[in-house]
Amino acid sequence: RTFMNWLGCAVGAAQHESAHAALAAVQLLQPAAQASVLGRGEKVDMAGAALINGITSHTFDFDDTHLKTIIHPAGPVASAVLALAEHRGLSGRAVIDALVLGIDVSCRVGNTMYPEHYDRGWHITGSTGTLGAAAGCARLLGLDEQQTAMALGIAASQPIGVREQFGTMTKPFHPGGAARAGLMSALLASQGFTASPKALEAPRGMVQTVSTKYAWNEITDELGQRFEISFNSYKPYACGIVIHPSIDACSQLRAQGVTAEQVERIELKVHSLVLELTGKKEPADGLQGKFSVYHGCACGLIFGKAGEDQYADDIVNRPDMVALRRKVVATVDNGIDEASADVTAVLKDGRKVHVFVQHAIGSLENPMTDAMLEGKFHDLADPVIGRVRTGALIAASWELGTAADVRSLTALARP
Amino acid sequence: RTFMNWLGCAVGAAQHESAHAALAAVQLLQPAAQASVLGRGEKVDMAGAALINGITSHTFDFDDTHLKTIIHPAGPVASAVLALAEHRGLSGRAVIDALVLGIDVSCRVGNTMYPEHYDRGWHITGSTGTLGAAAGCARLLGLDEQQTAMALGIAASQPIGVREQFGTMTKPFHPGGAARAGLMSALLASQGFTASPKALEAPRGMVQTVSTKYAWNEITDELGQRFEISFNSYKPYACGIVIHPSIDACSQLRAQGVTAEQVERIELKVHSLVLELTGKKEPADGLQGKFSVYHGCACGLIFGKAGEDQYADDIVNRPDMVALRRKVVATVDNGIDEASADVTAVLKDGRKVHVFVQHAIGSLENPMTDAMLEGKFHDLADPVIGRVRTGALIAASWELGTAADVRSLTALARP
Repeated sequence: RTFMNWLGCAVGAAQHESAHAALAAVQLLQPAAQASVLGRGEKVDMAGAALINGITSHTFDFDDTHLKTIIHPAGPVASAVLALAEHRGLSGRAVIDALVLGIDVSCRVGNTMYPEHYDRGWHITGSTGTLGAAAGCARLLGLDEQQTAMALGIAASQPIGVREQFGTMTKPFHPGGAARAGLMSALLASQGFTASPKALEAPRGMVQTVSTKYAWNEITDELGQRFEISFNSYKPYACGIVIHPSIDACSQLRAQGVTAEQVERIELKVHSLVLELTGKKEPADGLQGKFSVYHGCACGLIFGKAGEDQYADDIVNRPDMVALRRKVVATVDNGIDEASADVTAVLKDGRKVHVFVQHAIGSLENPMTDAMLEGKFHDLADPVIGRVRTGALIAASWELGTAADVRSLTALARP
Repeated sequence: RTFMNWLGCAVGAAQHESAHAALAAVQLLQPAAQASVLGRGEKVDMAGAALINGITSHTFDFDDTHLKTIIHPAGPVASAVLALAEHRGLSGRAVIDALVLGIDVSCRVGNTMYPEHYDRGWHITGSTGTLGAAAGCARLLGLDEQQTAMALGIAASQPIGVREQFGTMTKPFHPGGAARAGLMSALLASQGFTASPKALEAPRGMVQTVSTKYAWNEITDELGQRFEISFNSYKPYACGIVIHPSIDACSQLRAQGVTAEQVERIELKVHSLVLELTGKKEPADGLQGKFSVYHGCACGLIFGKAGEDQYADDIVNRPDMVALRRKVVATVDNGIDEASADVTAVLKDGRKVHVFVQHAIGSLENPMTDAMLEGKFHDLADPVIGRVRTGALIAASWELGTAADVRSLTALARP
C-alpha cells in the first residue's frame, strides 16, 4: 500500500510544472537512459530519476505520512530504490525489502529527533530521507555491514530541507534530493568510499548537529521486530491532515442526502490547531485552498471528496463553492481532539443534521480501504497515462512482490 | 592565486583512492563526457566533474583558507564553475568573475554564522559552499535577479557536512557535494524551478536552522566593495594551520645551517591550542602525522618543507624522523599567539639557536610568493601529469583571465 500510494502520486504530478523544470535541468547533464521518469516517456540516469520521481511524488502533498514524526517516508526511499532496481533489473520482492528497511531507518532516526528537530526548521522528510534512501539502496546493492555503515555515514552529511520552502517547488525537491543523495551515498560506498562509522551518533555527527533531542533508544528498540512502515498512513484528501476530519464529516453529510442548496449554515467545532494552521477564510487559489478548512468543508459537501482536482484554481473560485464555504461557521472547542471534528448542518427548512468524526478516514484507526486507494490512484493517474493503463499499473503494484523484474511495472507507468 | 592553488591541489590528488572511488561511483551513472576530471583522462557530466574535482581539491587538506571562518572556499565554487564553463566553452574571465562572486557569497554567509555554526558540528566549507557554488554558476549562466534568488534558495536547503567526518573520505566529499549541489541548484533555477526568496533569512530558513548566531550585516556590509576572496590564504604545508608557525621556525633553523645530527633537543613554545589540536606524539601513519606538531618540526628541520610527500606513511615512520620528533620538547605558553611559535634548537655542542616566528609563511601577513605557489603546484602535480605539462598548466592558470575558452586550460590538466 505504501508503494502503490507513492506511485500514484508520482504519476499524477508527472506533467506538473515542477516536473518539467526538474527534468529540463537533469537533461542538461545529457543523462543515460537508465530509469523511468514515472508518468512520462523520458528516461534519465538513476540519480536523475530518483530526484524527479521524489519531486513528483510530493508535489501534490498527497503522499504518505508517518504520523509520529509527520515524515512522508516513501518519497525519498521508494524513488531511490525503484530507480536503482529498474536500472539493474531487480525483482519486486527486493524493492519491497529495501522499501521496508529504508523507511524503518528514516522513521527511526526521525523518532529519535522529533519534534525538536522539526521545530528548529528542518523539513524532516528530507533530512532523514537521505538515510532511508541510502539504507534501501545499500540493501539492493547487497552491501556488507561495513559498506552499509559507510553508505549511511556518507548520507549523514547530507540532511536536506528547511521549512521556509513550504509553498514552493523546493518543498517537494526535499524528498527528491534526499532520494538522489541516498542513492549516490550507497553507490559511493559500494566503490570503497569511506565515512565515519559514527557519523550519526558522535557528538559532531549528524543527529547532534541538527537536533538537541536524541532519544537513541528509538533507533534500537525492537529493531527487526517493529517496523515503522506499519504506522504509515495514506491521505484521502490532498491537503494537510488537520482538515481531514472536517472534510470527512461533510462528506458524510452528503452521503446522508444533504445538498449545498439546502444549507443555511454549517456549524463546525474543531480544535484550535485546525484554525491556526488552516483558517484561511477566502483562499484565492488552489494552493491557498489547501490551507482553508472552509474550502475543505465545501469540497466534502459538494464533491464528497477533496483530491487534487478539487484544489484547482477554478474550483476554489467557483461561485457555488465560494457561497458554501462562506456558510461555514467555525468555532474552537479544545474539548475536541485535533484528529476529530463536530459538524452540524443547519438547513433552510430548520432541520439540523449532525455528524461527529472521531478518527477521519485515512487515519491509522480508520484506514483507507484498498478500493479507496485504487480510486485515489485513478483520480491521479488517469489524466496522465489513461484509465486502462492506470488499471494495469494498479494491478502490477498489488502484484509487485511477484515481479521477477520491476521493469515490467515501470514500463506501464508511461503515457 | 586562489584558482591556481585550487587547481594544483585537485590535480595532485587525482590518483588518490578517494578519487578512484568517487569516479567509479559516478561512472555507474554512465555519464556524458561534458567536463574533465582534473589530473586524469576521463570526462564525466558537469555535476559529476564538480563532485570529483571538489573531492580531490580538498583530499590533502592543502587547499585555501578564509581565515575568518576557516572556510576552504575554492573547493565548492571553483569545482562547480570550471565544470560548467568547460562544458559551455566559456571564457577564463567569466570563470574568475564567478569565482570571486561565489566565494564572496559563501564566506559572507560564513561570517554571519561563525563560530557558533562551526562549533555546533557543521563543516562550514560544505554548508556554505553550496550557496557559493550556486552563486558562481548563476553568474556563469547569466541568470537574472529573480532566477539567481531561486538558485540561492534551492541551495539553501542543502547544507552539506558534519565535522565527525574529519579523517575520512567524506570530509573532502563535503566541498565536492557542495559543488555538485550548487551547480544543480543553478541549473534548476535556470529552468524555472522555484524556492522561497527568503530561504536564507526567514525564521525557518537555512541560517536560523543551522546556527543560533546570525550577524546579517556580514552579508550586506560593503557588498560589492569588499570581497572576501582578498582575505583568502594558501597553505605552504599540508596540515592544519596551527602547526605552520612551528614548521616555519624549524625550516628557518635548517636555513641557518642546523642539521638533525647536531640536535640534542628542540624546545618548542606554543599556544595551548596547538597541543590541544595537534599534540600527537607518536603518529602511526601519514594521516596521524597531520595532527602531530612533533612530526611537523621534524619535517621543517630535515626537509625544509612539509608537502603531501612529507606526510607519506613511510616518511612518518622513517627512523631519523622518529628520532628527531622525539627530541622536540613542546611546552604551552599562552603569552605566545596561536599564529606564532618560539623554537630553540639546543645543539650537542652546547650552542643554542633561537627562532621566533610571529606570522608563519602562508598567513595573510606573510603570504606565499607566486614562486612558492608554483613550487607547491609542481610538488603536487608533477607526479600526476609530468613536469612539463605541469609547467604549461601553471602558465595557463596565470593567464586564465585572457583565455577565450577554458577548455584550453582543462586540456592541459591531463596525464
